[in-house]
Amino acid sequence: MVMFMKKIKVGILGATGMVGQRFIDLLADHPWFEISELAASERSAGKTYSEAVKGRWKVSGDVPEIVQDIKVKECTTDLDCKLVFSAMDAEIAGPLEEEYAKAGYVVASNAKNHRMLDDVPLLMPEINGDHLEAVERQKQRLGGEGFIVTNPNCTLMGMTMTLKPLMDSFGVKDVILTSLQALSGAGYPGVPSMDVIDNLVPYIGGEEPKVESEPLKILGGINSNGFENAPINISASCTRVPVRDGHTLSINVKLDNKPSIEDFSKCMADFNPLKGLGLPSAPNPPIIIRTEDDRPQPGPDRMAGNGMAVSVGRIRDCNIFDYKYITVAHNTIRGAAGASILNAELMKSKGLI
Amino acid sequence: MVMFMKKIKVGILGATGMVGQRFIDLLADHPWFEISELAASERSAGKTYSEAVKGRWKVSGDVPEIVQDIKVKECTTDLDCKLVFSAMDAEIAGPLEEEYAKAGYVVASNAKNHRMLDDVPLLMPEINGDHLEAVERQKQRLGGEGFIVTNPNCTLMGMTMTLKPLMDSFGVKDVILTSLQALSGAGYPGVPSMDVIDNLVPYIGGEEPKVESEPLKILGGINSNGFENAPINISASCTRVPVRDGHTLSINVKLDNKPSIEDFSKCMADFNPLKGLGLPSAPNPPIIIRTEDDRPQPGPDRMAGNGMAVSVGRIRDCNIFDYKYITVAHNTIRGAAGASILNAELMKSKGLI
Amino acid sequence: MVMFMKKIKVGILGATGMVGQRFIDLLADHPWFEISELAASERSAGKTYSEAVKGRWKVSGDVPEIVQDIKVKECTTDLDCKLVFSAMDAEIAGPLEEEYAKAGYVVASNAKNHRMLDDVPLLMPEINGDHLEAVERQKQRLGGEGFIVTNPNCTLMGMTMTLKPLMDSFGVKDVILTSLQALSGAGYPGVPSMDVIDNLVPYIGGEEPKVESEPLKILGGINSNGFENAPINISASCTRVPVRDGHTLSINVKLDNKPSIEDFSKCMADFNPLKGLGLPSAPNPPIIIRTEDDRPQPGPDRMAGNGMAVSVGRIRDCNIFDYKYITVAHNTIRGAAGASILNAELMKSKGLI
Amino acid sequence: MVMFMKKIKVGILGATGMVGQRFIDLLADHPWFEISELAASERSAGKTYSEAVKGRWKVSGDVPEIVQDIKVKECTTDLDCKLVFSAMDAEIAGPLEEEYAKAGYVVASNAKNHRMLDDVPLLMPEINGDHLEAVERQKQRLGGEGFIVTNPNCTLMGMTMTLKPLMDSFGVKDVILTSLQALSGAGYPGVPSMDVIDNLVPYIGGEEPKVESEPLKILGGINSNGFENAPINISASCTRVPVRDGHTLSINVKLDNKPSIEDFSKCMADFNPLKGLGLPSAPNPPIIIRTEDDRPQPGPDRMAGNGMAVSVGRIRDCNIFDYKYITVAHNTIRGAAGASILNAELMKSKGLI
Repeated sequence: MVMFMKKIKVGILGATGMVGQRFIDLLADHPWFEISELAASERSAGKTYSEAVKGRWKVSGDVPEIVQDIKVKECTTDLDCKLVFSAMDAEIAGPLEEEYAKAGYVVASNAKNHRMLDDVPLLMPEINGDHLEAVERQKQRLGGEGFIVTNPNCTLMGMTMTLKPLMDSFGVKDVILTSLQALSGAGYPGVPSMDVIDNLVPYIGGEEPKVESEPLKILGGINSNGFENAPINISASCTRVPVRDGHTLSINVKLDNKPSIEDFSKCMADFNPLKGLGLPSAPNPPIIIRTEDDRPQPGPDRMAGNGMAVSVGRIRDCNIFDYKYITVAHNTIRGAAGASILNAELMKSKGLI
Repeated sequence: MVMFMKKIKVGILGATGMVGQRFIDLLADHPWFEISELAASERSAGKTYSEAVKGRWKVSGDVPEIVQDIKVKECTTDLDCKLVFSAMDAEIAGPLEEEYAKAGYVVASNAKNHRMLDDVPLLMPEINGDHLEAVERQKQRLGGEGFIVTNPNCTLMGMTMTLKPLMDSFGVKDVILTSLQALSGAGYPGVPSMDVIDNLVPYIGGEEPKVESEPLKILGGINSNGFENAPINISASCTRVPVRDGHTLSINVKLDNKPSIEDFSKCMADFNPLKGLGLPSAPNPPIIIRTEDDRPQPGPDRMAGNGMAVSVGRIRDCNIFDYKYITVAHNTIRGAAGASILNAELMKSKGLI
Repeated sequence: MVMFMKKIKVGILGATGMVGQRFIDLLADHPWFEISELAASERSAGKTYSEAVKGRWKVSGDVPEIVQDIKVKECTTDLDCKLVFSAMDAEIAGPLEEEYAKAGYVVASNAKNHRMLDDVPLLMPEINGDHLEAVERQKQRLGGEGFIVTNPNCTLMGMTMTLKPLMDSFGVKDVILTSLQALSGAGYPGVPSMDVIDNLVPYIGGEEPKVESEPLKILGGINSNGFENAPINISASCTRVPVRDGHTLSINVKLDNKPSIEDFSKCMADFNPLKGLGLPSAPNPPIIIRTEDDRPQPGPDRMAGNGMAVSVGRIRDCNIFDYKYITVAHNTIRGAAGASILNAELMKSKGLI
Repeated sequence: MVMFMKKIKVGILGATGMVGQRFIDLLADHPWFEISELAASERSAGKTYSEAVKGRWKVSGDVPEIVQDIKVKECTTDLDCKLVFSAMDAEIAGPLEEEYAKAGYVVASNAKNHRMLDDVPLLMPEINGDHLEAVERQKQRLGGEGFIVTNPNCTLMGMTMTLKPLMDSFGVKDVILTSLQALSGAGYPGVPSMDVIDNLVPYIGGEEPKVESEPLKILGGINSNGFENAPINISASCTRVPVRDGHTLSINVKLDNKPSIEDFSKCMADFNPLKGLGLPSAPNPPIIIRTEDDRPQPGPDRMAGNGMAVSVGRIRDCNIFDYKYITVAHNTIRGAAGASILNAELMKSKGLI
C-alpha cells in the first residue's frame, strides 16, 4: 500500500525562484516524494534554504519547516536523490539538465529547452502518457538510465487540456486565443509595478510561438521515429495583466463537426482519464465547468482542484468559428511545478522511476 | 472665421455621471460650443453642479470653474440651447431622447437605445459621414426640426476605426477579438474593487452583441430606405481588467486579399479622411502606429491625440487569419463623450446645427 | 474527550455578507460547533445558501458543501440552535440581537451596536476573559438565560493585542496610529474600484472613534457596576488601501517605563495567556515577531496562525514616543468572524454555553 | 520683459531615469530655460534621447519632440550650458556634482548627497530663500563661480510646506507621521509588481532618517557659520503603497500654542510667500485646503497647482497632540524635478544664475 511505501528522495534544481518555491510548497507533504536536496545558483549555495529565500519567499505562508534548514547546494550531479525537479532558468537549463540525465537522474523539467526534442516527452498525463515510450530512445542517446521529461509552458496548459476531449469527440481544426496572464509567470522581481498599476502589457517575449507549437506535440501521436504533430492550427495573442496567479484564456475554436452546446460542454466535463490511477496530484476531474455568467475568474478559480484543475466557463456560440469559452488555470501550480510533479507521479506509477 | 463666430449653446443630459463629467471636461474650453445647461436626475436637480458631483467627480483635476455654479435641472425640454449631448443611462434615454428630438433639439447621444434604428445615424465621422443623410427621413418621422445622432459603443470604436481603411483597401471578411476593458466603462461606483484587485472579470453584460453588430452598420452603406450592413463577421469576447481608462483590443482579422505587412500597416497610418476639415476634436491622424514590441498600452497610449486617436501596434502574421494586432483607445473620450462632440462638430460643419 | 463530544448547533445571522461568509468558511469544519441555521435578509430567505450567494461568494474556494443546500431563513427567533453568530449590519443588529438574547440565545456578535454597553463584554479572549462576569448582570436586565457578547472593531484588534503585554509590563500612556486598511472591511460591493486603482482613500467613515474608544474598555477592568476604561490615550488616522484582506497598522507608543528594545519585543513574543486551554481557534502564540526589514506585510502575513495571529515587526526607537512598530492582522478572520468564534470557544470552555 | 529674454541653456544629468524624465517633461516648454544638453550613463551615451529611453519612458504622453533627437552625452564637464539639473543616482552624484560645481556650473540637485552640508542650501523657495546666502561660502570652498543647491527628499516636502506657516504662527514642537508613498519614488523598474498587487510594503530603506532630519535644516535659520536646525522633533514611518504618483502623509502635530481649528486651517490657506515674484513654476497658493470628508487623495489631487501644490485635508483634533491632518503632494514633480526647477527660478530671480 502507498501508505507504507518508502518515499523517493527528490532534489529541486533552481529551488529559490518562483517555480522552485512552488515545488517546495507542493512537495512538503507529498505522500510519495521527500525533498532531500535543494540546489540553486552559486549565490545561494552554502546557505540554509531559509536564508537563501529571505525576503524572496512569495508563496503564501512561511517556508515549510521541513526545508528551512536544508543547505542549498550548487547544481552539480552528486545529489543524493534519484529524481530531480528542474525549475532552472532557460538560460542554463539546457546543458545542465542533460548533464543530470547523463549522470543517471530522472529529470522532470519545467524549462523549455528540451520540450520539442524528438525523444523527450512533453507530457500532460491526462493527454499523452503514451509519449513516455520515447524515453527508451532518449536513454540510448544519452547512454545511461537517466532521462528528461518535460511539462509544457504555463499558458497553453489551460487550453490544451480542453482541446484533448474536443479533438477526440469532434475534431479540432483552428484555435484563436488571447491570454490574460498573471504576474507570477514572470518570476521575481519580474514585472515592474509601474507597468501594471492602471496599465497592462499586451506582450510577453517569446510566449506566443510556444503557445502555438507545443500543443501540437502534446496532442499529437508518437511513432518509432519520434512525435507527430496534431493537425491543428493555433494563433495566440499573449498579454500580461495585474493578477498575481492564474492565467485566463479567451478561446475561439473551430471543430470538424459542430456538436450541440450541451454535448460540447459535457465532453469536457466527462473527461477524466486518470481516474482510478491513484496519482496523488491528479485533479478529479481535471476540467471543471462553471455555469455562472461571469466565471471562471483567476481569483476565485485558480485553486480549483488544489490548483491542478482547469476551470472552464462562458461556453457560447461563435459566429465565425464554432464555440468560444474562457479558461482559468493556476500558472505556477498546474502550469509549472504541479505539472512536473504529476508527470513524476505518472512515471512512478508506470515503473519509470 | 471660426475665432469670432458666436458659440453654440449646448446642454448636457445626464451631466453628473462618468460620461457626463467627460462631456464637461471636454467642452469647458471648446471653440465652437459653450455649456449653457446641465440636466440630470431628480436627485441632483436644484443643486449647483459642484454640489451635485461632490465626492463623485472622477475626471482628473477639479470641476471646471465655468460649470461649478450652474444649477442642475431635470431633463425637461425647456433647456436654453439648440444641441444636447446625452450621457443618460440606457434605462431612460430611449423615450427622453426622442422627446428632446421631437421638441426640436439636435440630440448627440452616447446611449445605445436608438443606435440601430433605420433613420438614426450611428456615426463615426472618419468612416460614415454620409449616414447623416438619414436625418431627413428621421425628421419626417419625428415631425419637426430636431433629430438624434448616436455614437457607437466604447469598445468597438478602436476596432472599427482600423477596419475602415482595411476594408477599403483589402476587404475584410472575419474578425475575432478579445477586449481588455477599463473600469470607467462601468461608471461609478461601477465595478467593486474586490472584483479586480488580484482578479479580473471575463464578462461584461450585454457588451458582446453590441461589439458584433454595431460595426456592421457603421461600416455599411446607406440607401433611401435605410442602412445596409457591411458583409463582415465579428466575434467578440469582452473582459474587464484593473485599468482606469483605455480599452485594449486583441484583434485577428481575415481579409479578402492579404497585403504585405508593410502595406497593411501603411494603409492604417495613412488613413485621415477628416484632414483639412478643421473639426476641433478630430485627431490628426486618427490611427497612430506604434512600432515598439510592447505597445500600445492603455497607460501611456490612451491620451494619444488628446484621447481621440486609436493606437495600433504588434501587427504580425496570424497563422489562421491574415494578421493580428493590438489597439488601445480611450473609452470615455474617443469611446463616448469625445465621439459625441466630434459628431456634433461634423454636423455643424455640414450645416445641420 | 473533545473528539467525541456532541457538537453544539449554531446559527449565523447575516450569513450572506462578507463576514457571514467568513463565519461559514471557519465553521465548516469546526470541532465544537456545527452550522444548523443560516439567516439573512428577506431577499435571501427561502433560497438555498448556494443560490443566495451566487456571484457574491468572495472567500477563496467554493461554498462549503455542508451549507450549500441549507435553506436560508429570515432573522427570526425560532432557529434550531443555542448559539447565534451575528454578522448583521449595524443598521439592524441593535434591536435584533437583543431580541435573540431575550429569546434565550447566546449571541456572539461582530456588530458594533452593543459593544460599549455596561453589561456587555467587548471580548478578546487573550486579554479580558474576566469581562464575561458582566453576563450575569446582563441576563438580569434581559430577563432570561440569553445574552450578548461582542468582539471589537476589525482595525483596533492588531493594536490592542500588542498593548496588553506592553501595558502589563511597562505601562502604556499614549498611542498614535495610522491604519492602512483592506478592502474586505467595507463589505461587498464596498469600495468602488475607481477609488483604489492608482489611488487610496485616507478616510473611513466612523472608524477613528471606534479605534480610539473600544480598546480602553477591552484593556480596562470590571467591577460590580460595570467596566472601567484603561487610562490610555489613543489617536487614530484610518485609511483605505488597495489590499484585499489584512489591516496594517503603523503604531507609535509611549510607555510609563521605557524598556530595552529586546525586552519590548520579548514581552510581546512571550504573550500567550490562552496556552493550554485547548481552544480550537486560539493562535499559538497570538503575537508573531518578524525580524525581516520589510515585514510584516498583509500579503504574506495575514494568514499567520490561520488568520488569528497578529504579526509584528519593524520595532524601532521613536524619537518622540518610546517605540514604533508595524502590525498586520486579518480583518475578516481575527478582526471579525474568527474573533467571534474564539469568543464562543472561551464561553464554552467556561461553561457559559 | 520675460517674454523676450534670451532663454538660459540648461543640461540634465541622469536624464534617462524617472526623475530625469520629469525634468524633461517640465522643461520642454519652460519660459526661462531651454534644454541644450542631456547626459546620462555610458549605456545611453551616444544614442538619441528617443533611443535611450525606448520602452522606459514612464511620464504620460510621448517624449517631447524638442529632445527626441538630442544626442545623450556622458556626464562630463564640457556641456554647453550654465545650469545643470541633477537627477543622478546617489551612488554617483556625490563626486560628480562637486566636479560640475568646481568647473563653474550651477548645479540644482535632486540627489541626497550634499543636502546636509554646512554651505549647501537645502532649498524650498516658499520657506528658506535666505539659505541661498550660504552659496558665497560654498563658492569659496569650491574655488570658483559654480555651486550646488539641493531640494529635499520627496516625502517630507508635503509635510514641511505645512509646518512653516504653523511654526511661524503657533510654534511646532512634535510631529508624528506615517507616509503612504507612491511607486514612482522607487524609480524604474523599482518596486516589483508581486510586492504591491494585493499587498503593500511598510518599509522604505533609508527613508525615515531623511524625513526626520532634513526638515529641521529647511525650517531652521542660517548664520555666518552655517545652518541652525529648527527645534522640532519628527518621527516618521514610511510605507509603499500601490499608487503610481503622489505621496500621502498622515500627520499628527503638537504646537506651542493650540489655535482654533479655523485659525489652524486659515494659517495654511493664507501661506503664499512667493506671490508676486513671477516664478513660472510657483504654485499659487502652495497649500490647498480640501474640505471634503475624504480628500485629499493622490489620484485626484496630485496634479493640484500643476503638481507643485500641497493638498491638505481632514484637519481634525488629535486627542494626544493638537491636530491631525492628511497631505498629498506629487513626489516626482513637487517632490523632485519641479522642486529643482523652482529652486533654479528663485536663483535666477535673485541674480545667482
